[in-house]
Amino acid sequence: MNSEAVNESELIRTDVDGVSTLQLNRPNRRHALSLSLLSELETTLQSLKDDRSIRVVVIASAGPVFSSGHDLGEMQQRTEEEYSTLFATCARVMMEIRSMPQPVIARVQGFATAAGCQLVAACDLAVAVDTAQFATPGVKIGLFCTTPMVPLVRNIAPKIAMEMLLTGQPISAKRALEAGLVNRVVSEEELDSTVKELTTAIVASSRRTLALGKEEFYTQLEMTEEEAYARAVSVMTKNVLEHDAQEGMAAFLQKRTPVWSE
Amino acid sequence: MNSEAVNESELIRTDVDGVSTLQLNRPNRRHALSLSLLSELETTLQSLKDDRSIRVVVIASAGPVFSSGHDLGEMQQRTEEEYSTLFATCARVMMEIRSMPQPVIARVQGFATAAGCQLVAACDLAVAVDTAQFATPGVKIGLFCTTPMVPLVRNIAPKIAMEMLLTGQPISAKRALEAGLVNRVVSEEELDSTVKELTTAIVASSRRTLALGKEEFYTQLEMTEEEAYARAVSVMTKNVLEHDAQEGMAAFLQKRTPVWSE
Amino acid sequence: MNSEAVNESELIRTDVDGVSTLQLNRPNRRHALSLSLLSELETTLQSLKDDRSIRVVVIASAGPVFSSGHDLGEMQQRTEEEYSTLFATCARVMMEIRSMPQPVIARVQGFATAAGCQLVAACDLAVAVDTAQFATPGVKIGLFCTTPMVPLVRNIAPKIAMEMLLTGQPISAKRALEAGLVNRVVSEEELDSTVKELTTAIVASSRRTLALGKEEFYTQLEMTEEEAYARAVSVMTKNVLEHDAQEGMAAFLQKRTPVWSE
Repeated sequence: MNSEAVNESELIRTDVDGVSTLQLNRPNRRHALSLSLLSELETTLQSLKDDRSIRVVVIASAGPVFSSGHDLGEMQQRTEEEYSTLFATCARVMMEIRSMPQPVIARVQGFATAAGCQLVAACDLAVAVDTAQFATPGVKIGLFCTTPMVPLVRNIAPKIAMEMLLTGQPISAKRALEAGLVNRVVSEEELDSTVKELTTAIVASSRRTLALGKEEFYTQLEMTEEEAYARAVSVMTKNVLEHDAQEGMAAFLQKRTPVWSE
Repeated sequence: MNSEAVNESELIRTDVDGVSTLQLNRPNRRHALSLSLLSELETTLQSLKDDRSIRVVVIASAGPVFSSGHDLGEMQQRTEEEYSTLFATCARVMMEIRSMPQPVIARVQGFATAAGCQLVAACDLAVAVDTAQFATPGVKIGLFCTTPMVPLVRNIAPKIAMEMLLTGQPISAKRALEAGLVNRVVSEEELDSTVKELTTAIVASSRRTLALGKEEFYTQLEMTEEEAYARAVSVMTKNVLEHDAQEGMAAFLQKRTPVWSE
Repeated sequence: MNSEAVNESELIRTDVDGVSTLQLNRPNRRHALSLSLLSELETTLQSLKDDRSIRVVVIASAGPVFSSGHDLGEMQQRTEEEYSTLFATCARVMMEIRSMPQPVIARVQGFATAAGCQLVAACDLAVAVDTAQFATPGVKIGLFCTTPMVPLVRNIAPKIAMEMLLTGQPISAKRALEAGLVNRVVSEEELDSTVKELTTAIVASSRRTLALGKEEFYTQLEMTEEEAYARAVSVMTKNVLEHDAQEGMAAFLQKRTPVWSE
C-alpha cells in the first residue's frame, strides 16, 4: 500500500481477537463507494484472505448512513472505460467477499442504498439496527441498480426485490429481516453485542472447517440438487478425515473443548 | 383488433395517465381464463409493448373472485391439440408479462385460483386485498396445477408451494405476503390507492431505464452469480452513458426534476 | 430384508388408511441416523414406492429429539471408504424422498439436528411442534454440515442458512416457519391432527395426479422458466387427457365425488 495515509482515512481497519473490522469512513460523502474506497476495500479483503490470525471480517460504518452507493460526484461525464472500471471494481469487491475463506458480516447502523445495499446483500451475514432502511433507488436517477440487483435477488423473494428496484422506495429493517436480507434486527444499543455474538461463535470454530464450508455453500448453490449431493458427499468425506473433524468429534464425546489444527 | 365489441366484453382496457388497466370481465364465469380471454390478453399485451404512452400495466378484476383459472366448461372432452393450444396460449400470456418492457401489477381484489393464481405470480408486482386467497387446487379435479406451478415456485419457498399444490388448500393474503407472492396486503378501501402509489412511482421514472432493468432482472436471475455480475457491469456501463442517466444524476445533484428522453 | 428383527427396532412402520408412518426408533441414541437406520430407511422407502396402497408417507420420531443426525459413536477413526459409504447412503435416502411418487411429510416433535435437520428439509412437507428447534451444528465439531446444507439452502433464504451453518446455533420453530423450512407450527396436542389434515387432503386426491405433479415439481425447479413452461404445457396436456382429469372435471361440474382410476 503506497498511499496508506489517504486510504486509512477512507477505510479504517481494526483487528481485535481474530475479528477484523473494516469501517467505511467517508462521512462527508455519506460513505459513498468511490473508486478509491472500493480499491482500498479490494486490496484489504485480498490481504485478509491469507491472514490466518483473522477469522471473521465485519464491514461497518457510522452515522445515519451505512453507505449511499456509488459517489455521484465522480460519476458524471466520464468515459466508457472509466465507468466500466468503476462498476467492474465494485463487482470484484462483492465477489471477493464471497470467495474469501473468512465469513464476512455487514454491521448496518443506518441507511444502505444502491451499491451500499448491494454490499449488505453480498456479505455472508448481516445485522441491522431497527431504524436502518434498504433501497435500490437507481431508477430515480435513470440508472437502474443492475449490479446491486445481482446479490439482492439471490437473497430475497423476486417480487420484493422487483418492488425495490422498480419504485426505488426503501424497505424497513423489519421487512428486510422477514425477506432474508439481514439476519438480525436489533436496537442501536444491541448492535455491537449482536455482531459480537456472531463473531464469537465463528471464532470458536475451526478455520479450515469454516473456509471449506463457506466455499461449498456458494459452489453448490448453483448446481442441481443431484450434482450438489454428489459433490457434498465427496467434500464431507474429505472433511471428516481431517484432524479438526476427528478432534472435534473426540472432544464432543469426551465433553472437552476441541483444539483445532490452526 | 377485428372483434373489438366481443373482446371488450371479456377484457376492458382503460388508459389513464400512462397506466393501462386491463380488467378481466367474465363475472358470470368467475373471470375464468377461457381461450378467447387469454387470446385477447395476449393481443392486448403485445400491442401495449410498443405503446410508448403506456408506462405500467395493471391487471384487475371485480367481485369476490380475481380469476378462477381455466374455464372447466370448455375443458372437457377436447382433443389433444385443443388442450395443447389452450395451455400454450396461457403460458405465452404469462411469458409475455415477463418480456414486455412495462412493469405489470396484479390488483387482486378476490380469490385467485389455478391459472388465476399463476397470473398473479407471473406479474412483476402484486397488491392484494386482505380477504383475498390464493390456491392451486388442480389435484382436487385430477389435473395438477403444473403450469401455475412454474411461476409460483419462482416466487415462494418450495415447501409452501408444495403444500398448495399437493393439498389444493388456499393460503391467506397474509401468508401470501410473508411468502413473497404479493407485495402488499391492504383493506378493500386502500386497494386502489396502494396500486396508484406503485404506478405513480413507476410513471415518474425513465421508460428506457425501467425497460432495461426489467429485462435484466429476469435474464440474470437464471445465470450463475459470476455470469450475472459480468453481464451487469456491461449493462450498467451502457445505461450510465445514456442521456437519461446523465440527466438523472445532474438533476439529482442540482436538486431539480429530471427530464427523461421519452 | 434378512434382518427384520434388528431393523424393526430402529424403524417402525405403521400403515393406516393409505398413510405409512415410519418412526425413527433409536431413543437411546437420540434417533441418530446410523448406517443401519439409513439403510433401513432406504429399503423401506424403495419398497413403498411401488406400494399402491400407500398414498402418503410420514417420517416421525418420539421424545425431545427428532433426530440428532449422524451417530458420532460410529463416526470416529473410520476409513475413507466407510465414511464415503455412510454419507452416500444418507444422500441416497434424501434423494429417494424426492424421487418417490408419494408425498413425504416430516412430523417434527423435537430437536432436528445436522442430518436430522436435513431429513426435515428433504421432505416435501413438514409440520413441527412449537418447541422444536433446527440446527446444523457441524462447525462445532470441525465437520461442516455440507450434505445437510444441500436441501437446507434449497428451502430457506441463503443468509438464514448461512447463519445456521456458520454459527451452529439453532433456530426456533417459529423462525423455521417464517423461513419456509416447515409448513406448520402447532402445539404438541395439535401435532397429529395437523399431520392428519395434510394426509387426508392428499389421500383424497388421485394417486397418478399427485405422482405426476410431485415429479414435475422437482424437475422443472432446476430449469429456466422458459424451459419449465415448455415442459409444463406438454405434461399438463398429457395429464388432462387421462381418465382422472376428465373424471375430476366432470365430478366437479356435477357436484359429486370423483372416482379415481386407482
